[in-house]
Amino acid sequence: MTPHPFDQLSVQEMESVVRVVKSNHSGKSLHLKSIGTEEPPKALMAPFLAAKRAGKNPVPPPRIAHVIYYVLEDKLVNQCWVDVPSAKVVKSEVLKKGIHPPIDPWEANEAFEAAFDHPLVKDAIKKCGVEHLIDNLTIDGWMYGCDSEIDMPRYLQMLVYCRDPKTNHQDSNMYAFPVPFVPVYDVLEKKLVRVDYCATGGDDDDAAVEGVGNYDTRPEGKNCIEHCVTNDYLPELQDKMRTDLKPYNVLQPEGPSYHIDSDGYINWQKWHFKVGFTPREGLVIHDVHYDGRSTFYRLSMSEMAVPYADPRPPLHRKMAFDFGDCGGGKCANELTLGCDCLGTIRYFDGNVCDPEGNVFTRKNVICMHEQDDGIGWKHTNYRTDVVAITRRRILVLQTILTVGNYEYIFAWHFDQSAGIQLEIRATGIVSTQLIDAGKKSKFGTIVSPGVMAASHQHIFNVRMDPAIDGHQNTVVVNDTVALPWDAKNPHGIAFENTKTPIEKSCYLDSDIQKNRYLKICNENKINPISGNPVGYKIGGLATAMLYAQPGSVSRNRAAFATHHYWVTKYKDQELFAGGVWTNQSANEVGGVQDAVARNENVRNDDVVLWHSFGLTHHPRVEDFPVMPCEIMKIHLSPNDFFTGNPSVDVPKSNQTFNRSVEVKDCRSCKI
Amino acid sequence: MTPHPFDQLSVQEMESVVRVVKSNHSGKSLHLKSIGTEEPPKALMAPFLAAKRAGKNPVPPPRIAHVIYYVLEDKLVNQCWVDVPSAKVVKSEVLKKGIHPPIDPWEANEAFEAAFDHPLVKDAIKKCGVEHLIDNLTIDGWMYGCDSEIDMPRYLQMLVYCRDPKTNHQDSNMYAFPVPFVPVYDVLEKKLVRVDYCATGGDDDDAAVEGVGNYDTRPEGKNCIEHCVTNDYLPELQDKMRTDLKPYNVLQPEGPSYHIDSDGYINWQKWHFKVGFTPREGLVIHDVHYDGRSTFYRLSMSEMAVPYADPRPPLHRKMAFDFGDCGGGKCANELTLGCDCLGTIRYFDGNVCDPEGNVFTRKNVICMHEQDDGIGWKHTNYRTDVVAITRRRILVLQTILTVGNYEYIFAWHFDQSAGIQLEIRATGIVSTQLIDAGKKSKFGTIVSPGVMAASHQHIFNVRMDPAIDGHQNTVVVNDTVALPWDAKNPHGIAFENTKTPIEKSCYLDSDIQKNRYLKICNENKINPISGNPVGYKIGGLATAMLYAQPGSVSRNRAAFATHHYWVTKYKDQELFAGGVWTNQSANEVGGVQDAVARNENVRNDDVVLWHSFGLTHHPRVEDFPVMPCEIMKIHLSPNDFFTGNPSVDVPKSNQTFNRSVEVKDCRSCKI
Repeated sequence: MTPHPFDQLSVQEMESVVRVVKSNHSGKSLHLKSIGTEEPPKALMAPFLAAKRAGKNPVPPPRIAHVIYYVLEDKLVNQCWVDVPSAKVVKSEVLKKGIHPPIDPWEANEAFEAAFDHPLVKDAIKKCGVEHLIDNLTIDGWMYGCDSEIDMPRYLQMLVYCRDPKTNHQDSNMYAFPVPFVPVYDVLEKKLVRVDYCATGGDDDDAAVEGVGNYDTRPEGKNCIEHCVTNDYLPELQDKMRTDLKPYNVLQPEGPSYHIDSDGYINWQKWHFKVGFTPREGLVIHDVHYDGRSTFYRLSMSEMAVPYADPRPPLHRKMAFDFGDCGGGKCANELTLGCDCLGTIRYFDGNVCDPEGNVFTRKNVICMHEQDDGIGWKHTNYRTDVVAITRRRILVLQTILTVGNYEYIFAWHFDQSAGIQLEIRATGIVSTQLIDAGKKSKFGTIVSPGVMAASHQHIFNVRMDPAIDGHQNTVVVNDTVALPWDAKNPHGIAFENTKTPIEKSCYLDSDIQKNRYLKICNENKINPISGNPVGYKIGGLATAMLYAQPGSVSRNRAAFATHHYWVTKYKDQELFAGGVWTNQSANEVGGVQDAVARNENVRNDDVVLWHSFGLTHHPRVEDFPVMPCEIMKIHLSPNDFFTGNPSVDVPKSNQTFNRSVEVKDCRSCKI
Repeated sequence: MTPHPFDQLSVQEMESVVRVVKSNHSGKSLHLKSIGTEEPPKALMAPFLAAKRAGKNPVPPPRIAHVIYYVLEDKLVNQCWVDVPSAKVVKSEVLKKGIHPPIDPWEANEAFEAAFDHPLVKDAIKKCGVEHLIDNLTIDGWMYGCDSEIDMPRYLQMLVYCRDPKTNHQDSNMYAFPVPFVPVYDVLEKKLVRVDYCATGGDDDDAAVEGVGNYDTRPEGKNCIEHCVTNDYLPELQDKMRTDLKPYNVLQPEGPSYHIDSDGYINWQKWHFKVGFTPREGLVIHDVHYDGRSTFYRLSMSEMAVPYADPRPPLHRKMAFDFGDCGGGKCANELTLGCDCLGTIRYFDGNVCDPEGNVFTRKNVICMHEQDDGIGWKHTNYRTDVVAITRRRILVLQTILTVGNYEYIFAWHFDQSAGIQLEIRATGIVSTQLIDAGKKSKFGTIVSPGVMAASHQHIFNVRMDPAIDGHQNTVVVNDTVALPWDAKNPHGIAFENTKTPIEKSCYLDSDIQKNRYLKICNENKINPISGNPVGYKIGGLATAMLYAQPGSVSRNRAAFATHHYWVTKYKDQELFAGGVWTNQSANEVGGVQDAVARNENVRNDDVVLWHSFGLTHHPRVEDFPVMPCEIMKIHLSPNDFFTGNPSVDVPKSNQTFNRSVEVKDCRSCKI
């Protein structure tokens, strides 16, 4: 069967691609980073999709694989594009020095093994007084980041932790025992570069000098983590668990309400869309229609920047681009029935490769299920006491990433009112560093004895490529303004929703005083009821943006994280808010800032809206040893798109259908 | 059995109170507005609750009923306090002219019947050309509001609507047929005051002149709603319903996880609190402890102001205080099994009285049930692939109010991480007014032919009376600031969470650039891990505030709606952000503005935090004929209150317990 152009590459396709790439570099060793489908140009896809919808059988656009890999002997990163059916390389490129693809666990493992044999590291272990714990030591392999150098070698920095000194349990919480040195490893040269020491004296440290703090005044060889204590998250390692939680089961006796058609499209409650999976982004939603009308061409998580607040070297370099430096697809969890979701679940697998080019399938990287989400709408006619009520059923597409210490849960919710929500949950373990006993730091919180969790931000960017009844769309700024006192406003109560279409690519910020929201409109199509252009409202999040100073490398690298909204003209392959090559970048190249700088027309054009928002996380003690989910949500809602409430035809909620159970007890109704 | 002081009055107690009040006014006619428990002074309650917790059997504070009623012959509102056990009036008060208790449906019915017999109204019906539809006409009885007069008579204004002209179905959507006149009725004098005419010409109208617009230039007697069309929300009146939604059932085979003790306290997952019900506020949460530690003394919805944007008289007066003008308890829906909540449900009833003093029980005004709310926390150790994951179970206390056209769903969520969330859903039907064919208005949206839904705001206020490990608490402002470039911040990346305790009662606003949040601390108790005072973080909503101009009557009446946070010193009976007597008020009296003006110490004192936030609703066509829920949520989360994640002891999520079902189909895993 011909794959759909939005289908990921099959295992067979990937294997064929690997063979081509390898044969093109015979005699050399490759380290493969990723193999994904190169999404066809929209100019080809749009007519293809239109023809499919018209029931025709159009010829699909060329099926191209995009491959990123190192040629290890050359120490340079390559990328090439392979025509999949013919197994021919159609384009290839050697990237210049200083451009770095994402890190991967194999590199981190290699770095760990090499570094811990090195005399400098052995010396550091001795200085920190943890020689007797050498078998407990482990690392989080981190992107090196960047502070001021440019065209850097490929570095990896290692945050060192110690598994529980008492037990060395492999799943004890190592983040409760941070060891204050950072080996820096050159991945391509395969050698240790140096060992940096961390300041551990809290507010008493002089930040400018690397490694200064109580660490250097501590008698050499004294066990520096002696004041740290066991603090485990694993249920098996708890002293006492709750025993009073009763089972809660979700049953769908007639099965789920969706069906999947032969092109792999999901059909549920008038929705029709296709789920995709890419190495960089993970879960992607394509070609979204509701009741036969087009809404979005593509929805995706585009980037996330995680800068830390502590300026003391070397940890000032902690700034992760979780998608660009690691990869949403590559970090996706294999989900487990009965654990990650409740009810009637369908899973989707993802195909990935390892550095050697072995292709395998990661099972259950995306799950899909229905959820009851409370009341959909209700009205009681108080004159007759007649109640009309529906429940709100949603279809959830969920993926979960583990990026080192942290977990991110991304879920797209589709509802029965033609709304889409993106829910993000941040959980996992805060990244920690050692702090001496008796010290505090304004840059973080002590979450366990000797353990400081630095303040940090998670600035997300979601990319919305709309197709509101077609590809010619306009982003309109909706600002509420109070009208001045005058003859037409004699009581001073009037306010108005002003609407300003955006003409040229630009960025803009939230403004809560103005109740600002953006609406993506199709100005060529007027709602017959309201007389307004049809559209979708973007219910974004007004949050703090990046705190790094203007001119700082951190800010230069993550321009996307400095404004809430970026409105750009669509360009094929322009998918990543922070640019393609974020790892060790000194600047955001090819991201939203550059896209805006093209100063293109975006009115009644093929426009893309990018929304940045985030968590500024000052950890609390309750975030350790594992962080309860912090939940954020954005809303895409039809706004004068339909001629009425799209969920008015949802059947009334009733007991025959819902089968609830009433509890009555000895003390009935007493409040 | 002795009632708990936080228990509502029983039917028997209320009946006894009614007898006392009536006998005190023998020979006069009373119109009872409300009978509720007067909450005992905190100075008595706090030691009582402490003694109860210590296992003692303390004497409860005096049990006092608070009664509000009219003496109809005097045309004045009275309030009195009755000692319930002795059935003696302990205090009474005749309120001065111009102070108005809430409206009620009995008054609205009386007004409707009287007005529609009046020649002025008959004339208006004729002028509007709907004489032939007189049996279809009905009203929403609205609070009159206020524009400039003071010490006003007790007025009620009627928004006139027409049931479907074709069917006159009692539950047809009358809001699709708005009739453009407003009879004003004097409730105490029992007479029609006048009929106001509404402007219907949209942006062509001159706002300053009452009733101007195309209405007055339309040939007299022409059917003014001829261009309106049937637009029903009731399932029974739809042409076509969806048929492809499959059942979704929630089962708790071992029953719920909570138990209710002999004092009526809910015990669930270490939570211990009492649910209350008052005529004014409806659902109230009292005396909240987690794992034996005090968190909040009282949580309640305090007020909501709903001002409309259209300045054209008479509809400029549309401004409702849904709690103060109507009452959260009095508007509470009787919830139905299988409709308003899903799963294993426990209900609580509420006791109310009618104007004659008949006491009755409204069934199921509050429901309580558990919900699965996704993942609680997760971490995968990528070195070992060992996954630790819990689900997030919440306990939901829900109440639903119908206030005329609108519905509000208020739900307090208690979670397993010691967090509390307040979720508000706004649904129901937008309040509508007539607009002539072919016109538009900047003050609203045409949601159905001839039907304009004016822009409006819902500004809520939630009152949080904390007791964070005791009653001496401090509100601390947490602002994130970027540090300047200097020797200690050589890369310009540092930022810090600054903490400013509030000393004197005040208001303050959200500031998203500063990532501002408030934390309620107990400065007398230091977290042994972090060294910070124990506390709860308030995750509020940063939204637009009231748009009415400074100096406007609307703004004077709702000072609480002009700033996000108000920090005041606790005062017994000070429960209502907009003051006690909001109906037809000209100013906010006894609300948060006055409380702040006392300029009292609030540091390390008995402090109350009030949070205002809202929806600025520019209706969309999709909000008609019934509005899909608009959802808002605020979060109260422990912040350095515990010594670690309180939910670390929640058992691991697993299939044995959760019993999910995997769906496999013909096109397995293809994406």
